[in-house]
This record gives sequence, C-alpha cells and structure tokens, in this order.
Amino acid sequence: MAIDRASLIPVLKNIATDLRIDSVRSTSEAGSGHPTSCCSAAEIMAALFFAEMRFDPKHPQNPDADRFVLSKGHAAPVLYAAWAEAGAFDRAELSKLRRIDSDLEGHPTPRLPFVDVATGSLGQGICAAIGTALNARRIASDYRTYVLLGDGESAEGSVWEAANAGTLHKLDNLCGITDVNGFGQSRPSMWDHDMEQYARRWRAFGWHAIVIDGHDMAAVLDALDEARRTKGQPTMILARTVKGKGLSIAEGKDGWHGKALKKGEELDRALAELDKQYVQVPDETIAKNRTSLIKKPSSGSHAPAPPKPIAPPSYKLGDQIATREAYGEAITKLGEADARVVALDADVKNSTFSDKFEKKFPDRFYQNFIAEQVMVGAAMGLAARGAIPFPSTFACFLSRAADFIRMAAISQVGVKLAGSHAGISIGEDGPSQMALEDLAMCTAQPNFAVLYPCDAVSTERLIALMAARPGPAYMRTSRPKTPVIYANDETFTIGGLKVVRESGDDVATVIGAGVTVFEALKAYDELKKNGVAIRVIDLYSVAPVDRDALVAAARATGGHLITVEDHYAAGGLGDAVAAAVADAGFTVHRLAVREIPRSGKPDELLERFGISAAHIVSAVRALAGKPVAAR
Amino acid sequence: MAIDRASLIPVLKNIATDLRIDSVRSTSEAGSGHPTSCCSAAEIMAALFFAEMRFDPKHPQNPDADRFVLSKGHAAPVLYAAWAEAGAFDRAELSKLRRIDSDLEGHPTPRLPFVDVATGSLGQGICAAIGTALNARRIASDYRTYVLLGDGESAEGSVWEAANAGTLHKLDNLCGITDVNGFGQSRPSMWDHDMEQYARRWRAFGWHAIVIDGHDMAAVLDALDEARRTKGQPTMILARTVKGKGLSIAEGKDGWHGKALKKGEELDRALAELDKQYVQVPDETIAKNRTSLIKKPSSGSHAPAPPKPIAPPSYKLGDQIATREAYGEAITKLGEADARVVALDADVKNSTFSDKFEKKFPDRFYQNFIAEQVMVGAAMGLAARGAIPFPSTFACFLSRAADFIRMAAISQVGVKLAGSHAGISIGEDGPSQMALEDLAMCTAQPNFAVLYPCDAVSTERLIALMAARPGPAYMRTSRPKTPVIYANDETFTIGGLKVVRESGDDVATVIGAGVTVFEALKAYDELKKNGVAIRVIDLYSVAPVDRDALVAAARATGGHLITVEDHYAAGGLGDAVAAAVADAGFTVHRLAVREIPRSGKPDELLERFGISAAHIVSAVRALAGKPVAAR
Repeated sequence: MAIDRASLIPVLKNIATDLRIDSVRSTSEAGSGHPTSCCSAAEIMAALFFAEMRFDPKHPQNPDADRFVLSKGHAAPVLYAAWAEAGAFDRAELSKLRRIDSDLEGHPTPRLPFVDVATGSLGQGICAAIGTALNARRIASDYRTYVLLGDGESAEGSVWEAANAGTLHKLDNLCGITDVNGFGQSRPSMWDHDMEQYARRWRAFGWHAIVIDGHDMAAVLDALDEARRTKGQPTMILARTVKGKGLSIAEGKDGWHGKALKKGEELDRALAELDKQYVQVPDETIAKNRTSLIKKPSSGSHAPAPPKPIAPPSYKLGDQIATREAYGEAITKLGEADARVVALDADVKNSTFSDKFEKKFPDRFYQNFIAEQVMVGAAMGLAARGAIPFPSTFACFLSRAADFIRMAAISQVGVKLAGSHAGISIGEDGPSQMALEDLAMCTAQPNFAVLYPCDAVSTERLIALMAARPGPAYMRTSRPKTPVIYANDETFTIGGLKVVRESGDDVATVIGAGVTVFEALKAYDELKKNGVAIRVIDLYSVAPVDRDALVAAARATGGHLITVEDHYAAGGLGDAVAAAVADAGFTVHRLAVREIPRSGKPDELLERFGISAAHIVSAVRALAGKPVAAR
Repeated sequence: MAIDRASLIPVLKNIATDLRIDSVRSTSEAGSGHPTSCCSAAEIMAALFFAEMRFDPKHPQNPDADRFVLSKGHAAPVLYAAWAEAGAFDRAELSKLRRIDSDLEGHPTPRLPFVDVATGSLGQGICAAIGTALNARRIASDYRTYVLLGDGESAEGSVWEAANAGTLHKLDNLCGITDVNGFGQSRPSMWDHDMEQYARRWRAFGWHAIVIDGHDMAAVLDALDEARRTKGQPTMILARTVKGKGLSIAEGKDGWHGKALKKGEELDRALAELDKQYVQVPDETIAKNRTSLIKKPSSGSHAPAPPKPIAPPSYKLGDQIATREAYGEAITKLGEADARVVALDADVKNSTFSDKFEKKFPDRFYQNFIAEQVMVGAAMGLAARGAIPFPSTFACFLSRAADFIRMAAISQVGVKLAGSHAGISIGEDGPSQMALEDLAMCTAQPNFAVLYPCDAVSTERLIALMAARPGPAYMRTSRPKTPVIYANDETFTIGGLKVVRESGDDVATVIGAGVTVFEALKAYDELKKNGVAIRVIDLYSVAPVDRDALVAAARATGGHLITVEDHYAAGGLGDAVAAAVADAGFTVHRLAVREIPRSGKPDELLERFGISAAHIVSAVRALAGKPVAAR
C-alpha cells in the first residue's frame, strides 16, 4: 500500500522498538544470546522488512521474493522477531528461542523456511548473498538480495572475496548493510566507529558505499532507496549504530557481547525503558495492520525447463582419459539436460576442465578467480535458490573453503563440490598441490556423499547421481590419465561399489579407488602369475559406503581386507571401510600416504610412499598367510 | 660494498637475465613448471637479492637476516636460481628441479634451508610474512621481510586479512611486491594490467602503495628504497610486468601458464634470445664477483632468555574448571617460563581465555580480529623464526584456516593451535559454533600432535609438552566446566593415555576424551551399581595414540572397545583407536554424533545425539553379552 513518509516512519520506529523488546525478552528467557547485537540493527531490520523488501511472509520460498541473509548470524533473535512481526509465525514462539524443541536456534539454520543458508560463522552470509543475487539473473527474476553484516565480521577475508565478486558480476541487485556498532566480541572492533575506514575499502573494491546513522529511520530508508536506484554495481550501506541501543545498561558499552539480560529486575527495567521508546503514530489504521506495509514480490521469473534425460556415456573401453577431464565432459552433458546446473571456477578451469562447461554455457558459468571461499559460498546461495551448482578447483584448495563446507553441511544445501589433482599421483608439483586430506574433510560431515571414480564412465554416471541427490556432495578426481574400464551401460549408485576382479579362490580383498584401482589391478596380475588370486574392489562411493558388499567380500576372502589410497592414512578409504565392517568383526590393513610427500614422478611417489602395486603385492603376501584375528 | 647506480644497474640486469636462463633451463629439464611466472619477476628478484636484502647466503637462518617469502610459490625456479646465484648452493643443482632426489621441489618447502614456510597455496605467503615481520620486533632485530605476490593471488581473501594485519601492527619492516603480469592460470587475471585497481585497494587498506614498471631496474631499486624509508605503515610495490618477459614465444601471451619450453629447438631458441639480452657492464670487477654485492645482516637481535622451569599445576581435585580456562592459564604460565611463547587471537580472547596471556604479556599477544587465516599464517611465520606461537579461537573457526593448517604440516613448523568450544556440549549456540570435525582436520595431517584434555591439570601439562615438541600440534578444549581429576604431580606424555578406572573384572573398555570422559565415569558408576565393571580410558592424546595400551585394554576386557566422542563419527577418537588396534584384530564400537546437531542444553544434546552416559551403558550392555568376532 502507498503511504507517506511522515506516517510511515513512526510506525517503523515502533516496529524497531518491538524488535528490541522481542530480542531482549527471548534471549533473557533463553538465558543466553546476543540482545545487544540485535538492538543495534533494529531500525535496519524494521525498514527492510516493512518498507523495503518484497516478500510473502507466509511463503518465504516464493522464487521472486527478495532474499535477506543475516550474515551476522548471532543477531538471530532480531531476525526471528522480524519474521514473527511480519506474520510468518506466532510471536509466542519467540519465547522458545534456543530450546531443543524449537527451530529458533541460537544462530539461523534452514530448518526455518525463511532461512536460505545457515549463518553464524562470520563472513559467510555475504558470500551466499552473491549466490542468491547471481541466481536472480539465472531465473530472470527481479528479486533483490539484502545482506546484513557486522563490523567485526568485516575483518574476514571472505568478505573481500565477496566484495570483488559483487563488482565483477556487477550485482546491482545486491545490497549489503554493515551494522557498525563499534564492538566485536572481546573488544572494540578493528576500526571502531571510524566509518571512513569502511567506506574507503568498499569503494576501493568497486561498491557504491553510503554512510548513514543506522538509528535514523529516514536515513535508513533513503539509503535503501539509493541502493535500489544504483545501477551497475552493488551497494554497501555503512550504518553507524550503537551496540545495545535502547538499553541504558548496555548501550555503547564493552563487555556486553553475547550476554542476555538477567530475568527479574534487570530485564524488567530494560523492558520498561524500551516501552517508553514508542512514539506517537499519526495513522492508527496502519499501526494496527502493519503487515499491510509489506511489499509483495513480483512474479516475473521463468521456471527452468524441466530436465531432459541425459544421453549415456560414450567412451571406449581402454581409452586413456583422466577423471578430471571426464568431469568437465560430464557436467557439460548434465548442463545440456538440466538448466538448473551451473558451474563455478577459481581460475583453474583449464585444469579441472570446467572450461568445457563455460564454452557451452557462458551464462551459467561463474568465474571467481583465485577465491575459493566465495566460490563455495556463492554455490551455497545458488543451491539454496534451486540451482545445482558445481564449484570446482584443485582438491587441495577446497580446504580453503573448509568452513564453508562445514556450513553447507549444516545448511543441508545441494552444493556439488569437485576437487581435481588429488593425491601424490599429481607428481612433480609437490605437496602444496596434493590433496591428501580432502576425503577426511568431506567424509567428516555426516550428510555428504563422497565419490571417487577411477574412470571416465563412472565419473559421468556419478556426476548425474550427485546432481540428482538432494544435499551436499563431493567428487574427487585425479590428474593422470586412466583407462576406461566400465562399459557405457554400466550402472552405479551412491553408496555402491564395483567388484572388478573376483574368483572362488581369492585370498584377500584389495579395495582401492581412483588411481589405486589400477595399482590393485597390476597387483592382481602380478599375483595371478604366481597362482595367487585376489578380489579387487573399486570403492567409488566412499560415503555412504556399501557395508554389506564389503562384509561379504571379507567373508569370502579369509577376512583379509586391504585398502590402498592416494590419501593420508586418516579419514579416507581405510577408515571408511574399517568403520563399516567393524560390527562384523573385521579389521582392515591400510596402505596410505603416511608422511609429508615431496616432488617426483607419479610412479616414483606411489612406490616411495607405499601405495604402488608392489606394496599391495607385499601386503597380500604378508596378510594372506596369517590367521584373521591375531589377538 | 658501496657502488654507484650506473655501475650497479647493468650488473643487476645481467643477473636478471641469468635468473631467466636458469628458470627456463631448469623447467625444460624437468619437463614441467612455471618459467613464464619466473620471467616476469626476474628484475625484482635480482634487485632484492643483489641490491636490497641483507643476508648471508651460507647461513640463511641467521636471526638478523632479511626474510624473503615467495608467496607466488609456483615461481620456485627463480627463487632457486637467485639463491644459487647468491652462492647458497651449486648452480648445477638447478638441473635437478622437481626430481625426487632433490629438495628443489615444484613449490618451495622448508626442506631447503632458505625457505621459512612452504608456499604454493596462493595468498598464504603474505600471511606468513606478517609473522616474520612481527617476529623482528619480538627479538628486537632490524631485519626486514620481503614478500613477492602474484596478481592472480590478490583475489584471495587471506591477502586482505594480511593487509589489515600489516596496517594494524604498523609493520614498516614489511615490504610486499606484487608481480602484476596480467595473467592468472586460465585467463587474464581479475584486473588485468589496471594498476589503479591494485593501488586503490592497498591504499584503502592503509598501505603505502607504489606503482612501477617491474622491468625497469632503476624503478625497482627506487621503490625498494622508498619502502625502506616509509615509516609507520607497510609498503606494497605494484610492479607492472609481462608474463614470460624475455621469451618472444610466450611474452604477454595467454596459455603459457605452467608450461615448460620443450627441450630442443624451442628451448634453444629461447636461450639464444636470452643470451642476447646481456648488457655491457662498465665495471668488470663487480660483474665477476657479484656475491660481493650482497648486503650483510646486522647483528643486533637479542637472544631470548633461556627457558626457565615451569611451576607444576596448582589445582585442587574436584574443582570445576573448563579446559578452555585452564588453557588460558597454562599458556600464561608457559609464557612466564619461556620468552619464545606468543599468543594470537581472532577476537574471542575472553572465551578462549587467551586474554589471561594478553594481560601479562601484551607485547607477545597479537590481535588479528575475526581473521583466522592471517592468525594461523602469522603463527607459521613466527614459528619459522623461533617463536612458539599459540593461535587460538573456537575450534570450529579453525576450519577457516584449514588450508593453512595443511601448509603448516607441509612446512613442519611449530604452530600450536588451540580450539575451544568443541562439540555439541557447547549447547544453545547451535551447530555453527560446534566443532565436530576439528579432530578429523588435524589428525589427517601425518605430523600433527592432537591433544584433547578433560581436566585442568592435564591441560596445563599437555600445553607444556606441546610447546616442547617440535612441529605442529593442536589442542581441543571444551566449554563446560569439568572437575579436576588428576593430581598436580600426575605425568602425561604426547602419545599417552590414562586408565582412570580398571579392575580384573572389566567387561569392556570405554574410551572417551574431554567431556565424554565424565559421561564414561557416570556410566561406570551406573553399571557398578548393577555389578558390571568397565575400564575407562581418557584418550587425551588422539594423535599419536597409545596403541599398546589400547591393545592391552582390549585383551583384558573381552575385546570390547567402545569409543565415545563429542565429534562426528569420522576422523575422531573412534577412527584413531580402530586404526591403532586393527593389526591386533580388534574392532571398535563407536558412539559419536551422527547427524547435524541443533541448539539445546548440553545435557539434552549429549542424550539426543547418542554420546551420554545412558548411551554408554546401553552400548556396554549390548556389546558385553556378545562374542567378540561376530563374523
């Protein structure tokens, strides 16, 4: 509804007071939380929700609704208060804040329908906001993305990766607001209230920056208006605020971060103070029907074309193709079949072969340059809005985004990570380029699918499965060329494995994945010459893992399980298999990289660090002679 | 020796040509590598090593020698060429580049005596340089730190964390040089040759920025001179260069990243071209004795006072003290005994209790605000220069620095990480603040000690051991208060454990660490009431792990091992114990957090997510009745 400024501002002021009251009350009820970090943002939140953003409180996932990301996730109570005030749920629920029976958690998670990605690890929300802003273009929607940051958070490098990304992509549909309340957790923040420090950094990074008093409602409205009218670049509103604003006990004082007011006198006095901050409202009709102020989303977006069937792989048995190259081919084929598929790069597209996708779908390819955090963070935002994003780089550099991967798991969003150049088999580039802990990083998360194909056909098949499975997933690919060993019509499952060699006489089962499958096959041939048969398993799905098939193989091969992996000993294949078969009483003999490696030729390194065919042969010989339980 | 500019410059130009020749030749010999990224930096390297830096090529670890960090680690060949040219080793060694029998690896590692920290993961070297620059103050040395970055690398958020740190600490002993050659790996870099993009960012972040032509030797010398004279702020020299400079086949062309010239005609032609780039030298004496140009380090630093004995802990059995608080106390006591000890924070000092250290030793406490990458990176630099740094934050936020942790392992530097607020036992703050994969992250690295104490005494004892052990280490601490269970004279070892309950009738061994030790003790009491005895182990050292003691416990308790941990199921206690006892034929029953947790009271969460005393009791009952091997 149209309403004049003079009538609107007092209503918004009173909403801000309500948000303060709800934030203070709910945190006191919970006995913990961040009321002061909420109070500094109350005017900003009131203006955003009741005068700026276009959304439907009853259907927060409307594809054309403006997005709001609370990058300063610890201010969750004011977010919940705003949504309750907007009518998304009953205000009485706010008193359940932080309780195990409530989804109103200490920091926001997508258990709540109005939260796109979990926040609370600072500096991540703005990266996700890059993703939701990119997504608007993908679906041709005019929705805007708003992201609220804290000043302390601005020290995170990821914020500046996002700053570059916003400028590069000319995201004028993105508006950041930094709540500069001057305090971090343990002390005044890096630049205190020196607004110029913020403004010059954002301007240098190419954003339109506006400095305002964040408690001056008219100034907040003007700034949001200016941001909306700014074209060709994103806007950052730098709002000078007071931490704990409205609470005389805490206002502008250090030592009040993350402290709830004590129930009883302390809380009562604060509530009485806040109560006095209500102002006269000229138009009582509006005041009584505040939700009528909320702007409606438009409905211009195009629903993406429904996915088409994907043509089967068309490789030739025996052809030499690196799985990283098959990855590039696979996401491109997938992209042809499904318009939701997008790819993100960190300036290694010619090594990961994601450049194949770029050539075909330049509009769905996002270059992040060497900035892995915003690459994964943007993918989280894209996934939260219905895209199927494949961010890829060298597997070792995905560790740069480990905290984002952690938050992607918490967010349960469908980011499809791919890491190439895994392990010592990359050779001469040396340890800094070798991922030897990436499986540990991803298998640790309880909801990640972790896939590690050894040939082109399985790579292509698994990429399709990875895209179809809801939730986060990781694929590990290798640098060296490996032969195609599976027929094009071979089927795979997430949680499956392939027995690639077997007989009734197998004395042991050797379990590899990726490049070590071929070491196992070499060992098979070598042992066979000497009349020793082994079973060989390609464990292409490391998480979930096919427990029953592994136990069956153990039972059939004298209980002798040997894992061999181009990964450190902890957190990879060996641990995954051992955990799976433990309840059946089987243990696992592990061949893995057990020290910091070095540069050298791939074959030399496999030999030196204990994961070559020769080491497998020795392990089989040593183990197969032994009784199973050496207790 | 003093020498006039006119005589110096031609010599330096010829050194630059030599560096190009060596870089091109060695990479061609290796068959891989980055000659074009070396060629763009040749003048900068020649000027630094032969006209600016004060060092002793034969003793690169001289405490007062200027430091050089190659943040763009892929330009390793030009680094090696410069040190060879300076006389650190025989130039003939360069032909062994990237070979398994040479320490001249694809990217620099501290296997070489002149490398402080491994580089090759971009954006990290400048963070380490912050650390070496801080270290100069610590030891009252006038040495300066120089760090060479690439332009592509400047997209990494960690670079901007370092930029803030340099300004905050007013590091005028730090000089960065960005080799803006305009190309990343896969395409032109983010801002191509737009030098203003770089300059305005660095200036906005508070650095003195100088834009030069990086191939104009006089300009390089002038800029280095200006940097040295700039006080109160660090300097960034932004050098416009040409990738592949000097090689007509590659000069300024895309598609030449990471490509060696082919031996034979391609290489020969390039070498012939380079040969023509030598210039006339007025003073032949200097040209023949170039190493005489190298400036000597001063010798003003103070050797730190020798460590004193540390007083034993002085806790009282039964006192309730959180291990995070004991950590703060422990590093403070350690700091009193050993002047090499420093602490680094990311604005959570009042939660990790590192503020205790700050109060006592403000000069050895480095505040990084919310920027975990530069916190850990600076710690790497400090450790490489003889300090014993304890960077600490919430354990979950250390994952922000996972790639730095990986590189710290490769660097084998003694960073002593501490992560507080581990696991679901933090309660209401919710999953974003709960570290449940930190053990996986650190145990994956083969050279990390990973410690997880359950009480104040063990925390204090382990901190001292952690400091004394060379190499990287991680301590995990908890939020809740826990009782002191060890006497002040109890001894601990890295790689040890404590059997805290045992009898001859134990039907199972329950292995906990941190908060779960107390759940195990509750289960012990509960079971005892019903006449069931269990053994309880405090596995305070998760890596290395005491294999023999675990096997002995398994043998003594019917082969029934139960691990219980406030961590996800993969990569923590369960996997560590299972891997250790596998060769003895024992398997492990694991109690761990197996799904994404949520907000709630700590006790409610331990119960809901399966790691409470009640779950241990059930597990013991279920397991103790079974035969050991259920095959």
